[in-house]
Amino acid sequence: MTSRVDEILSWYESDDAQTLSNLRRILEHGRTGGTGKLVVLPVDQGFEHGPTRSFAANPAGYDPRYHAQLAVDAGCSAHALPLGACQVVAPEFADDLPLILKCNSSDSLYTGPDPEPAVTASVDDAVRLGCVAVGFTVYPGSAARNHMYENLRRLAVDASDAGLPLVVWSYPRGSGVSTEGRTAVDVVAYAAHLACQLGAHIVKVKPPTEVVESDAARAALEKAGVPLGTLADRVRHVVQSAFAGRRIVIFSGGAAKETSAVLEENRQTALGGGFGTIMGRNSFQRPHAEAVTLLHDVMDIHVSTPVPSP
Amino acid sequence: MTSRVDEILSWYESDDAQTLSNLRRILEHGRTGGTGKLVVLPVDQGFEHGPTRSFAANPAGYDPRYHAQLAVDAGCSAHALPLGACQVVAPEFADDLPLILKCNSSDSLYTGPDPEPAVTASVDDAVRLGCVAVGFTVYPGSAARNHMYENLRRLAVDASDAGLPLVVWSYPRGSGVSTEGRTAVDVVAYAAHLACQLGAHIVKVKPPTEVVESDAARAALEKAGVPLGTLADRVRHVVQSAFAGRRIVIFSGGAAKETSAVLEENRQTALGGGFGTIMGRNSFQRPHAEAVTLLHDVMDIHVSTPVPSP
Amino acid sequence: MTSRVDEILSWYESDDAQTLSNLRRILEHGRTGGTGKLVVLPVDQGFEHGPTRSFAANPAGYDPRYHAQLAVDAGCSAHALPLGACQVVAPEFADDLPLILKCNSSDSLYTGPDPEPAVTASVDDAVRLGCVAVGFTVYPGSAARNHMYENLRRLAVDASDAGLPLVVWSYPRGSGVSTEGRTAVDVVAYAAHLACQLGAHIVKVKPPTEVVESDAARAALEKAGVPLGTLADRVRHVVQSAFAGRRIVIFSGGAAKETSAVLEENRQTALGGGFGTIMGRNSFQRPHAEAVTLLHDVMDIHVSTPVPSP
Amino acid sequence: MTSRVDEILSWYESDDAQTLSNLRRILEHGRTGGTGKLVVLPVDQGFEHGPTRSFAANPAGYDPRYHAQLAVDAGCSAHALPLGACQVVAPEFADDLPLILKCNSSDSLYTGPDPEPAVTASVDDAVRLGCVAVGFTVYPGSAARNHMYENLRRLAVDASDAGLPLVVWSYPRGSGVSTEGRTAVDVVAYAAHLACQLGAHIVKVKPPTEVVESDAARAALEKAGVPLGTLADRVRHVVQSAFAGRRIVIFSGGAAKETSAVLEENRQTALGGGFGTIMGRNSFQRPHAEAVTLLHDVMDIHVSTPVPSP
Amino acid sequence: MTSRVDEILSWYESDDAQTLSNLRRILEHGRTGGTGKLVVLPVDQGFEHGPTRSFAANPAGYDPRYHAQLAVDAGCSAHALPLGACQVVAPEFADDLPLILKCNSSDSLYTGPDPEPAVTASVDDAVRLGCVAVGFTVYPGSAARNHMYENLRRLAVDASDAGLPLVVWSYPRGSGVSTEGRTAVDVVAYAAHLACQLGAHIVKVKPPTEVVESDAARAALEKAGVPLGTLADRVRHVVQSAFAGRRIVIFSGGAAKETSAVLEENRQTALGGGFGTIMGRNSFQRPHAEAVTLLHDVMDIHVSTPVPSP
Repeated sequence: MTSRVDEILSWYESDDAQTLSNLRRILEHGRTGGTGKLVVLPVDQGFEHGPTRSFAANPAGYDPRYHAQLAVDAGCSAHALPLGACQVVAPEFADDLPLILKCNSSDSLYTGPDPEPAVTASVDDAVRLGCVAVGFTVYPGSAARNHMYENLRRLAVDASDAGLPLVVWSYPRGSGVSTEGRTAVDVVAYAAHLACQLGAHIVKVKPPTEVVESDAARAALEKAGVPLGTLADRVRHVVQSAFAGRRIVIFSGGAAKETSAVLEENRQTALGGGFGTIMGRNSFQRPHAEAVTLLHDVMDIHVSTPVPSP
Repeated sequence: MTSRVDEILSWYESDDAQTLSNLRRILEHGRTGGTGKLVVLPVDQGFEHGPTRSFAANPAGYDPRYHAQLAVDAGCSAHALPLGACQVVAPEFADDLPLILKCNSSDSLYTGPDPEPAVTASVDDAVRLGCVAVGFTVYPGSAARNHMYENLRRLAVDASDAGLPLVVWSYPRGSGVSTEGRTAVDVVAYAAHLACQLGAHIVKVKPPTEVVESDAARAALEKAGVPLGTLADRVRHVVQSAFAGRRIVIFSGGAAKETSAVLEENRQTALGGGFGTIMGRNSFQRPHAEAVTLLHDVMDIHVSTPVPSP
Repeated sequence: MTSRVDEILSWYESDDAQTLSNLRRILEHGRTGGTGKLVVLPVDQGFEHGPTRSFAANPAGYDPRYHAQLAVDAGCSAHALPLGACQVVAPEFADDLPLILKCNSSDSLYTGPDPEPAVTASVDDAVRLGCVAVGFTVYPGSAARNHMYENLRRLAVDASDAGLPLVVWSYPRGSGVSTEGRTAVDVVAYAAHLACQLGAHIVKVKPPTEVVESDAARAALEKAGVPLGTLADRVRHVVQSAFAGRRIVIFSGGAAKETSAVLEENRQTALGGGFGTIMGRNSFQRPHAEAVTLLHDVMDIHVSTPVPSP
Repeated sequence: MTSRVDEILSWYESDDAQTLSNLRRILEHGRTGGTGKLVVLPVDQGFEHGPTRSFAANPAGYDPRYHAQLAVDAGCSAHALPLGACQVVAPEFADDLPLILKCNSSDSLYTGPDPEPAVTASVDDAVRLGCVAVGFTVYPGSAARNHMYENLRRLAVDASDAGLPLVVWSYPRGSGVSTEGRTAVDVVAYAAHLACQLGAHIVKVKPPTEVVESDAARAALEKAGVPLGTLADRVRHVVQSAFAGRRIVIFSGGAAKETSAVLEENRQTALGGGFGTIMGRNSFQRPHAEAVTLLHDVMDIHVSTPVPSP
Repeated sequence: MTSRVDEILSWYESDDAQTLSNLRRILEHGRTGGTGKLVVLPVDQGFEHGPTRSFAANPAGYDPRYHAQLAVDAGCSAHALPLGACQVVAPEFADDLPLILKCNSSDSLYTGPDPEPAVTASVDDAVRLGCVAVGFTVYPGSAARNHMYENLRRLAVDASDAGLPLVVWSYPRGSGVSTEGRTAVDVVAYAAHLACQLGAHIVKVKPPTEVVESDAARAALEKAGVPLGTLADRVRHVVQSAFAGRRIVIFSGGAAKETSAVLEENRQTALGGGFGTIMGRNSFQRPHAEAVTLLHDVMDIHVSTPVPSP
């Protein structure tokens, strides 16, 4: 138990002891345990992009057990995964690795202008498999957003009854936002805020770019003189939009890229007050040893960067 | 306990003691307590317009606790807010400040011709968080109106079971009304009437303009010689449309504007028999002291204006 | 208790004692009580057409209590009204005036080619408020008709469980019928028959015109030599279509019109075997004394006209 | 009890005793009782085509009791009818005449390219009214077919719980089949097979024409040398498609026609192995005595025609 | 009991004893029992393609009992069939032949661009009829995919509660995939992976062709040097995509074809690590003796081909 973790948990005062205990389990686990930072290994890319694109680069990854072991080996805070993979790994790994059951997922065999993931698992599944949290994706900007938000609320009620924290992937897309706008700083801030208003304990968003999608938001930012020049600046705005930093916001890594780019992105995220990262393809598509090294480096960046004052 | 509050409560004779007790709590609370007038602080703009546009002007507002404290400091009758923010503030504030849980909300990352808010909270949430009422928005004029009305009815049944009054934001919009018609006097009167027929205890509408949207309504108004020249006249027509004034109707302030305009609008509203105001951006986007002063001035206008005879 | 009422109740042999008792209450109530005729005062026009168009002509009508008192003063058989108004008047009037809770309603701020009312109240509401029956509108001819019929069936099951008779407003409209066809004699007869097949105890339709909408119906009418020249003739065809007259069919008055036209329409309706009328705008938009006189005159026409032999 | 009825009941081995007892009741009832043949009187034409077109030719038919009495007088196996009519006749007739409650129906005031009937009654209604079976219509070929099949399955589960057999009207129509194809022999065979796969105890289809809708079916029929020249041939193919004759298949009469045509159609149906007929307009639109005579003649044809060997 | 079956069952560690026992029953049954291979006889073609096209070639097949007996005679591992047929055969065959109740099915009287089967049976039906497993079809690539996945999840929950394994037919089709792409190797691999992620115990896919549908998948395959030249190569990729071979994947036979083609296809499937086949039209449209011989030959190929090392 550490004072930073206690401080973070104090922000969730309306939650019951069981939910806080599970949230603590993630925050106390792994190499970053107790620092208030977290690095999560998510592997839903088989579902989202297909097994060929996801695992051909490192065929060990066809086996769900590979990823759970990688999360253990690298000391990740938690491992997020869909139902089928969770059924494979939970009996062996749930005791020693915090598992986050991803309860909805999209596949890319059909894509339309206003996407919505399928709901593929429930809190009952998570409880049965010994998971410590449930995950859910929403796409603000999609015409189907309300249906996602309402499904999220149903999941949140069940999760609360079961004492499981809720991790929300908030990814703007759909006919309401431009392609560039999906990572615009005002849109990402908005997406983080929506997830918080919908009851998320942990929010996952993408690193925001310098684009500002909405004219009204640009006017407000300029009038207030909000600095947005660096990723750290933009992360700061996003974290502030999450109830003035009183919700855990982590940033995803996106497509595989150079090691140096990954490290720099995480450095900026940490400087801006981000609570960590959730990094899939950049880790599991690398060879095992290389992946562990990269994850360790990323963790060290987050742990060694001081938390900015609010 | 005051005779005016008793008189108002007598209009809700079909409600049970618990609902009336909670309605009384709002009417007896704060600076206007006991006068039959009420001034509510609503903060759902982070959800509705995004955090950047809402809070960059006064960054203290990124933190939901700021608004609850502002409502306390200014002596507001109640504070209305969405679920996530309520989870932050309820443990600390629910005992001392009447909280209205906003149970549906729209975001502006997707907008279509026939809008509908997402249902994001329930009566169970309101009870768990110690709220005294639930709020719900309907958009008469939207093709999706029936779905909203039916969701509102479900909420009303749950609220009645739990003894919570129902506050309805009735905002005409959608393909059935023109942009000008959204605040047309006949349309606002219709919106207030619908909310009453759907079981609202408190109705929130926008200040009506001189526009008359429907030819049939214009003919009826002209034939009856109904005066509509001043905002007070138009408010009178709206309040009359709410069961001849036997339902509490309050008026929202809309976008931020000059102090003098705010005060004049409230003066007219009070003269026309409005029961008060619900004022968000005009208060929380101002610095704290200025906001408290403005809220006090508005409260004093409502309290000092005599209730027109029916 | 009267023999004509007993005769009518004998047609509803599959209903239980509680339902028959409530149906009897309507048939035994008011100035037409015991004659087998009924005159109902419906006031849902505030919801359907808006308060301005409905009540500006006689502003006393903004207050729901005005209508309940008018129904009492005129000796109406029952008063039909939506939920919100019912919440206002039920505590004071339910003991002395049979109330019919209108469980769905349309507003006219949005209109589309295939209309459907919103479901705005339930049998539970009716029971709680002491109503003696529930009312429901269907629009045969609308693409949404099946949804309405199925909602009506759900309501009918609940009503049967609670012992409440079911009053069905069967108003053809929507893309399946022409504007003229909405009151065509074959269409109105069809609408009355559908309501009976769906389980209505009392059916409300509009007075049929000489138009015949369907070629097949016209051929059948001509081959059988069915007289349709007078309104009485056409009412006779409609009543026959309601299980050979073994269901109560009443006719609505429509828009406000001259007194003489109202009386003549009711005379024809009574001659054709109609069981009475349900008359809103023609009564409550007149001054109180004039409305009472007109209602009395209409009641006297129905009572004094002998029931045609089947 | 007869050996043919026992043989037929042996095909429904997965059903419980109550369901078989009710199925036996139909098979043992009336003039064809015990022969394994059945002639059912269906009267849902008031709902389906309107009262004017259905009953003007023989106005006694406006009264639902007329049809029940006709079924009794002619010795029909059962009488099928919608809810409202059933509420009229059940109290008097259910003890002496097997009643089949038609649980969904279409009206013709609205017609679209992909029709679906409204669900208008339930197994609970059937039990309450003393019916021995429930009936349901599906339209294979309609875009809405899945919704109908799924509603049928829900009804079948309820019916099984209540011990009521399921009679399925399987009428291809909708945008998936041509107008001619609705009675094409391959399509009717397919419709009968689908009803069996969905759990029907008795299947009602239309007499198949020589049209073959699908090229693949035509190729299969030609390759196998299946004779289709006479109605008897085609009925044989349809009955074979119903689990090799192990489900009861009856044929409807369609629009009113000449007596000789009716008799010839039934002769062919019987020769082909059909189990009987369900004949509405051809009976109830004739004068009573004529209808009884025709029904008797039809029954005699079915009883006197030997069952073809499988 | 055999070590290979035990090994396979060990992959399903999160399942309870009853589910594993039923899965074992399939794996231990028939001519391939105990080898870890399985050959299933599916007969839903009457529903899917119509009885004429399916059974005219071998008219014995109109009777559902024929297929069950064929499965027994040939020593198949299990027999998959829709509800109606299952009601016919289960009482006689369920004790001696593992039955898989197909819980959804499509008919071809209506076809649209984004197909979805109707849900036609439930786990309750399967339990009542003594089945050992339930089957469900999904169409990845259809706009309706999410609805199918979510229905599958509901079925999976019920099946798990009842201890029944879940067999998933994963057939890409709909507007998201090209006609060629339905059997593209990357698409079939994706379809198999999705079924596993959704909780399938046994996955049925079509034999993959050399087509690669997605550019991103082709790039990944080429970069990794994955061999795809033979069907065995492609089957290997598909099996690997099913959790590195830790789920049972079987391949369907498709339309009737030459015996030699059938045998070669199965040889390749076995070489690639497929667990067996599910073969309908190629067996039941042949004369009985010929079908038994072919099924035996296919079984022998699967049993005699060594399992490739993972």
